[in-house]
Amino acid sequence: MIGVFDSGIGGLFVLSALRAALPEADLLYYADTARLPYGARSPALIRRFAREAGERFAGWGADRVQVACGTVSALALDEFRAAANRPVSGVIAPAVREVIKSGVRRVLILSTEATARSLAFDRALTGEDPGIVPLSLGCPLFVPLIENGFFAKNDPALLSFIGRVLAPGQTFLPDAILLGCTHFRLLSPAISSLFPGVPLYDCGEAAARALAKTERSQGGGSLRVVVSDGPDRFLSAAENAGALPPGTVVECVGEV
Amino acid sequence: MIGVFDSGIGGLFVLSALRAALPEADLLYYADTARLPYGARSPALIRRFAREAGERFAGWGADRVQVACGTVSALALDEFRAAANRPVSGVIAPAVREVIKSGVRRVLILSTEATARSLAFDRALTGEDPGIVPLSLGCPLFVPLIENGFFAKNDPALLSFIGRVLAPGQTFLPDAILLGCTHFRLLSPAISSLFPGVPLYDCGEAAARALAKTERSQGGGSLRVVVSDGPDRFLSAAENAGALPPGTVVECVGEV
Repeated sequence: MIGVFDSGIGGLFVLSALRAALPEADLLYYADTARLPYGARSPALIRRFAREAGERFAGWGADRVQVACGTVSALALDEFRAAANRPVSGVIAPAVREVIKSGVRRVLILSTEATARSLAFDRALTGEDPGIVPLSLGCPLFVPLIENGFFAKNDPALLSFIGRVLAPGQTFLPDAILLGCTHFRLLSPAISSLFPGVPLYDCGEAAARALAKTERSQGGGSLRVVVSDGPDRFLSAAENAGALPPGTVVECVGEV
Repeated sequence: MIGVFDSGIGGLFVLSALRAALPEADLLYYADTARLPYGARSPALIRRFAREAGERFAGWGADRVQVACGTVSALALDEFRAAANRPVSGVIAPAVREVIKSGVRRVLILSTEATARSLAFDRALTGEDPGIVPLSLGCPLFVPLIENGFFAKNDPALLSFIGRVLAPGQTFLPDAILLGCTHFRLLSPAISSLFPGVPLYDCGEAAARALAKTERSQGGGSLRVVVSDGPDRFLSAAENAGALPPGTVVECVGEV
């Protein structure tokens, strides 16, 4: 059984990609909705959340876990892995490999504030290719916007907000944008409209592609979805985002 | 020593009003920033947060506590009081008294989603005067907007967002608006511009006025500010909102 972890609905796109690529794999998705949003917390608290989430997957007996949360991937993957005590992959290495392969130079990384401050994506990129020029931009409010259903393509208020947050990225003149938070995929039409012609790389898609290559599709193709608070709210946000098959049951396990 | 509790910066306006009215009172402000925003959580989780916050004030030896969080006042004041084991007041009763006194009839209550669903303000209003017609409107994203510094008066993107959320309130044709979340005070110019001529009642101001009437100002006029995560982030949000005197030190006690 493959576990997939996120703070909220962002990782559901990783889940969908894995279900499509590995139709017989048994999948367990866990969203820590009781403590969302992670990206506005301190590194110490994010590490604690990561440990507690890792322990949960150990308890559930997952064979391996895909951390589909950019913030945990950037700040606390080691803590998550130690607590889970099984193979754990994040979203940074696969995304960085895809970006490097494409040959782009000026890479604008959009992420949560905690991820941006960690410079984890920047370091991973320049570690692979010192010629890359990365710029990490922390995007406050993007995750709450998305979790509350504000991601419609042609919403002028949303575009105006996003434009203000992304303004420093426009003067950077990127030749690629790396979405370093799996939630941000829902804002990609809006982001693209502000950076016409600039290719977008989604860390969640890259991670799902990488995992699908190494895993074999075996099992009954089951899907279990678990949250730590508010299953109805989560289900409605997920359905609104088109990110869960109709009729999915969402279990609530409570906060740790 | 008087304790003041909120999930974030909203209660700081209650604190300011208390400092002005009771200059010699010793005050302790605690913001549970590790679990913010409360208003998007389930009632069970809000009750647990309230218990844990109440216990903290018991440990600090506060003589009494003003809960300056509309969500805890609406859903978990009894739990907070039992855990604190000392006199505790919320923000609902004082606001309801002021609204009733003013003689208005159609009252639009703006609050977090959890508070709106609880109907605590509605019931308190009609309990005092069955002729009152209340309408509670849950406002998702308002607290994250404010905590992230988006509350400028003439921000067209913000006005557009707020206008969309408040649209059902406009067709209700209120003759008064009750701000049932202490954060919302920062959005009052924007809210007023959408409801010209409709008076605003702020539950935080009403609570501070009520407490100042019953308490005596005694002590050294000290101020202690404590958060459960991210003291720097809190301080910058508070200063941005003009809600803390310059030079205030913010302590971090960690999550429970």
